[in-house]
Amino acid sequence: MSDLDQAIRQQRTTRATVTLTHNGSPLAQQEVVVQQQKHRFLFGSNWGESSIALANGELAGKEKEQAERRNERFLQLFNQVTLPFYWGRFEPQRGQPQTQRILNTARWYRDHQCVSKGHPLCWHTLTADWLLPLSKREILQAQIARIQRDVADFASLIEMWDVVNEAVIMPIFDRYDNGITRICQELGRIELIRTMFETARAANPKATLLLNDFDVSPAYDILVEGCLAAGIPIDVIGIQSHMHQGYWGVERTQVVLDQFARFKRPIHFTENTIVSGHLMPPEIVDLNDYQVSDWPSTPEGEERQAREVVLHYKTLMAHPLVEAITWWDLSDGGWLNAPAGLLRKDHSPKPAYDELLKLIKGEWWLAPTKMTTDANGQLTFTGFLGEYELSLGKQKTTFALAEKGQSQVAVNL
Amino acid sequence: MSDLDQAIRQQRTTRATVTLTHNGSPLAQQEVVVQQQKHRFLFGSNWGESSIALANGELAGKEKEQAERRNERFLQLFNQVTLPFYWGRFEPQRGQPQTQRILNTARWYRDHQCVSKGHPLCWHTLTADWLLPLSKREILQAQIARIQRDVADFASLIEMWDVVNEAVIMPIFDRYDNGITRICQELGRIELIRTMFETARAANPKATLLLNDFDVSPAYDILVEGCLAAGIPIDVIGIQSHMHQGYWGVERTQVVLDQFARFKRPIHFTENTIVSGHLMPPEIVDLNDYQVSDWPSTPEGEERQAREVVLHYKTLMAHPLVEAITWWDLSDGGWLNAPAGLLRKDHSPKPAYDELLKLIKGEWWLAPTKMTTDANGQLTFTGFLGEYELSLGKQKTTFALAEKGQSQVAVNL
Repeated sequence: MSDLDQAIRQQRTTRATVTLTHNGSPLAQQEVVVQQQKHRFLFGSNWGESSIALANGELAGKEKEQAERRNERFLQLFNQVTLPFYWGRFEPQRGQPQTQRILNTARWYRDHQCVSKGHPLCWHTLTADWLLPLSKREILQAQIARIQRDVADFASLIEMWDVVNEAVIMPIFDRYDNGITRICQELGRIELIRTMFETARAANPKATLLLNDFDVSPAYDILVEGCLAAGIPIDVIGIQSHMHQGYWGVERTQVVLDQFARFKRPIHFTENTIVSGHLMPPEIVDLNDYQVSDWPSTPEGEERQAREVVLHYKTLMAHPLVEAITWWDLSDGGWLNAPAGLLRKDHSPKPAYDELLKLIKGEWWLAPTKMTTDANGQLTFTGFLGEYELSLGKQKTTFALAEKGQSQVAVNL
Repeated sequence: MSDLDQAIRQQRTTRATVTLTHNGSPLAQQEVVVQQQKHRFLFGSNWGESSIALANGELAGKEKEQAERRNERFLQLFNQVTLPFYWGRFEPQRGQPQTQRILNTARWYRDHQCVSKGHPLCWHTLTADWLLPLSKREILQAQIARIQRDVADFASLIEMWDVVNEAVIMPIFDRYDNGITRICQELGRIELIRTMFETARAANPKATLLLNDFDVSPAYDILVEGCLAAGIPIDVIGIQSHMHQGYWGVERTQVVLDQFARFKRPIHFTENTIVSGHLMPPEIVDLNDYQVSDWPSTPEGEERQAREVVLHYKTLMAHPLVEAITWWDLSDGGWLNAPAGLLRKDHSPKPAYDELLKLIKGEWWLAPTKMTTDANGQLTFTGFLGEYELSLGKQKTTFALAEKGQSQVAVNL
């Protein structure tokens, strides 16, 4: 077993002792079936346009079949989805947000046991054009009102938010004028982040709030430190890793993890991309500048992608502070038309998908397993943290394993 | 007049109305001589080994003559000096600091109307080797005690300190193990800065305290923002500009100024270098890696340096928040053996020295000037902010011009 595999066992599994009783008496020598139902770790991906359309009953025929196939593949692997709240698309005309359409989508994911995250509440890219004629004060008020409205509207369906996205570059972003860069210049990064986090926190005190960035230089590290020193309630540090220009490798990923681990806060790898075609040239600085009509997935690329995806997920799973990995995008042809999918354009699985499935629902998963309780009504097994179902004949019950190392669970049937 | 020259006039001069009285009566129609004695702006350079030795009576013969020549050139141009407090050199053996030697030096500069700054109180480079066997807790205690001791020992002679130097790279500096990187990793940058600033502030509440860095990327910008948001009492933002690899140019310098101007705090350009020889190759990342036995000053290089030095000083003087410019080093053969001096190795002036002198003690200076008071005993002139002497016959008095724009001064003779 590799060092990574050992660390994963250490960080992610528990030795569970389950005591079965009936009316207070131990159920000794009983044969039961135990199976995992859910990972505690969040394995996710971002929405697909087709999954939103499907959840809103907008598809029929072949399109509907394709979207259903995509959803099946999604649910086979994942328990988390990132849903789009890009302001310019979410509310293209002021006062007419597409709340209902995303509510329907979030409900579909909830009904399929997926945790939804909203992305993002405040970002300078894809923000609303109608901010441009407003004063800075009005833009700030609109941004605050937007957070209040959307976080409240989605409470209970979405309790996890990328509150501020890419704040390191936000005030110095100079590709085009936009309302959010303007208010970030005015407030400074930390005061902008404070305002947005406090607004989101007030709108839903239970929500998990992330700061998210693609910058993994000391600038982001220092920004997180500055926010925490200023008392801003950041729950989770979000790190993007769009590796269109090549997989980081284990060592670099661990350096990044170590850099942010010192804050002793949960880390989410929020946007993970590894392509199965040619790499984007290294001289591209803003990934959005690489516009190609065709970026094919190749057999060699798919094999390489599969190896790298396995290493990437293992590296992150081995680190105790990482709590979520979100793939970006599930199928080819998404952002930048990159062959970044775990599925091809027709939603057929690439090797990376199959390998991830072997881990997430294989090596890191407890399939239905027969066990027999001892004289004290106890059974013992090692499992990954998450939710489990126990069946005794026709009786079923569920329990959670939430603490790594050792767990004691009492089940009354 | 160029835009820079106009901005300099606007930011640095005042239209002074001086009213002369004797026992309450206006001294009308009197011919007086007014001359500038000192700039309010700090024009400085770092110490020279020879100036320290000379102040301590350690030199004789030709060496003494050379050191005196250097001092003359220094005082002709400058009113600020940066004195060395590199811990490993200042206190090579624990408990035996060379306090007296630097006290003598600081007194010499004070006696010659120069403001001394201590550099630095906390830095991972050139720090004391005897920290290495200590625990992190002991290193931190030693660092705090060092600041308490030195800031107190030099109070009244040194009231300006580079408190923390190069904090952006401090915790990730990996060239060699050192005690300060260790405690910075432990505390984080902001807590380390807070500790050092609060210690220095307590040791001398009147002192002007700087954070200083060569990093002018968003990382430093964000660090300053984080420190201020955390309530750390940073008086001045220090920016190094060692341009061994080429002059930044006006535009880049202005971008850097704008980046830090948003904090609305004074800015010191603490370490300015422009060479008069070949440029250091651009691929060098840590300037200390460029080790050459010979790095000659050339005639063409000296002409280029003079043009660039003038532009650099004008660009900084034109920005209202800049309050100090410290040249690094005055004579060739200092740090990195670079031809970075305004003087050559023999302390003869290069064109850059002459051009600076023409500005600092010429264009930006009031030489002794005859003026006549009007019927109300008033005279009016435009001068750079600073201290002035007024002579009426054998009577002399001094006054300060401290506010740009318009100044009213009452002088009783």
